[in-house]
Amino acid sequence: MRNLKLVLAYDGSDFSGWQVQPDVATVQGTLASAIGRLTGEKVLPQGSGRTDAGVHALAQVATFMTESVIPAVNLVAALNDILPAAIRVIEASEVPNEFHARKSARAKTYRYRIFRGAICSPFLARYVWHYPFPLDERAMQEAAQRILGEHDFTSFAAVDPERGQENGEISNIRSVFASHWERSGEELVYRIEGNGFLHHMVRNLVGTFILAGKGTIKPDAVTDILEARSRSAAGATAPASGLYLVSVKYEC
Amino acid sequence: MRNLKLVLAYDGSDFSGWQVQPDVATVQGTLASAIGRLTGEKVLPQGSGRTDAGVHALAQVATFMTESVIPAVNLVAALNDILPAAIRVIEASEVPNEFHARKSARAKTYRYRIFRGAICSPFLARYVWHYPFPLDERAMQEAAQRILGEHDFTSFAAVDPERGQENGEISNIRSVFASHWERSGEELVYRIEGNGFLHHMVRNLVGTFILAGKGTIKPDAVTDILEARSRSAAGATAPASGLYLVSVKYEC
Repeated sequence: MRNLKLVLAYDGSDFSGWQVQPDVATVQGTLASAIGRLTGEKVLPQGSGRTDAGVHALAQVATFMTESVIPAVNLVAALNDILPAAIRVIEASEVPNEFHARKSARAKTYRYRIFRGAICSPFLARYVWHYPFPLDERAMQEAAQRILGEHDFTSFAAVDPERGQENGEISNIRSVFASHWERSGEELVYRIEGNGFLHHMVRNLVGTFILAGKGTIKPDAVTDILEARSRSAAGATAPASGLYLVSVKYEC
Repeated sequence: MRNLKLVLAYDGSDFSGWQVQPDVATVQGTLASAIGRLTGEKVLPQGSGRTDAGVHALAQVATFMTESVIPAVNLVAALNDILPAAIRVIEASEVPNEFHARKSARAKTYRYRIFRGAICSPFLARYVWHYPFPLDERAMQEAAQRILGEHDFTSFAAVDPERGQENGEISNIRSVFASHWERSGEELVYRIEGNGFLHHMVRNLVGTFILAGKGTIKPDAVTDILEARSRSAAGATAPASGLYLVSVKYEC
């Protein structure tokens, strides 16, 4: 058995998220079908983490075990021939058997794009959150800095008892290594890197930073929201369309 | 009655073209519904021309007559609130009653985008033709120059007896003012400006220039293809996803 690692980009707009579900198109299910057509094996590729419906990926990582002898380098073109254009395999490589897309991950980076112009191009609408209203960008930057370091992120986690935590842990403590906003033309782009993310965490953070941008809360209120350890203390969940899984870091 | 002119951008991917049809989503039908909701009137906006299923527009022009007193400047935000994000009204203005989006048009510009890289980003797939195979770009440029000026474009017109010509004319003679390819990073972009276009004309031209790029025909064979006045003399129809209606010119 060989352990194969894929790096994937996808436009999440028309998928019901990463995780395979009956009767709906998912990225994991679509990828599993393509691998099955290629190898004749029934495999379920494991992702570095789930992405929700509408969330995009620039470099999601997935692994699967196979008896197939197809060279890893040939997998890219072979899978892309079968997959819909909304999912692309960017890289494929053979990795040690102990490597696991989720369990071996050490850090992940997400990006969230907000389009600030009055009229959002129809070619951009699926890929951003269109928010044309006034925002104090400095207050948003201050709010974003409040979550740096190790914290209990319960206030920013979806209340979702049926869904386990991303790393199979019960703890909601995560470390955030980078958290900042950048201007890029008419876009305001949030970048966060951390060792793990709770369900809806980035979108709930963005929804809360927007409250600081609108002046509804002071930037330092983010510290109180963290300490409250209650989802109701934080802001609303920002739309999925603006969110991208940018990269996953591994030790090896 | 006032005559209102709209400038529209749309992502054509999920529409069955411009022209209203029963039971499918069209740009004209969607726009008509939005105007109806706003004004309470049943109107059918007239476009500068039809775009096919999957074809995009950066600045399509449409006009409609209305009894509504809503200021034109307010129409942009009011219609965009109702329309799906895939259609945006960019401008709205009141024009003289004799102005007609189609009949008053003097020239149109189209663009066709070909993505040349090996792997086409999922965020680009709806907006280009992915053609990663070798092409002689100089031959394509020479082929494109062969159609400059006034010609009978029957060889590049869809054989479609049920559909009238764009300007209500029987003649297939059109004048082309600009026809050239440009490199833009990993894209090869064709730009054509003319006084009118037959059904599928730009996509059939692109499909023929590709034959010159592949070396299947010599660039000067385009002149013979024009003279043949037969659809079967020219190349295949290039995919809709790469085509954009860029702008429409009027005298006033």
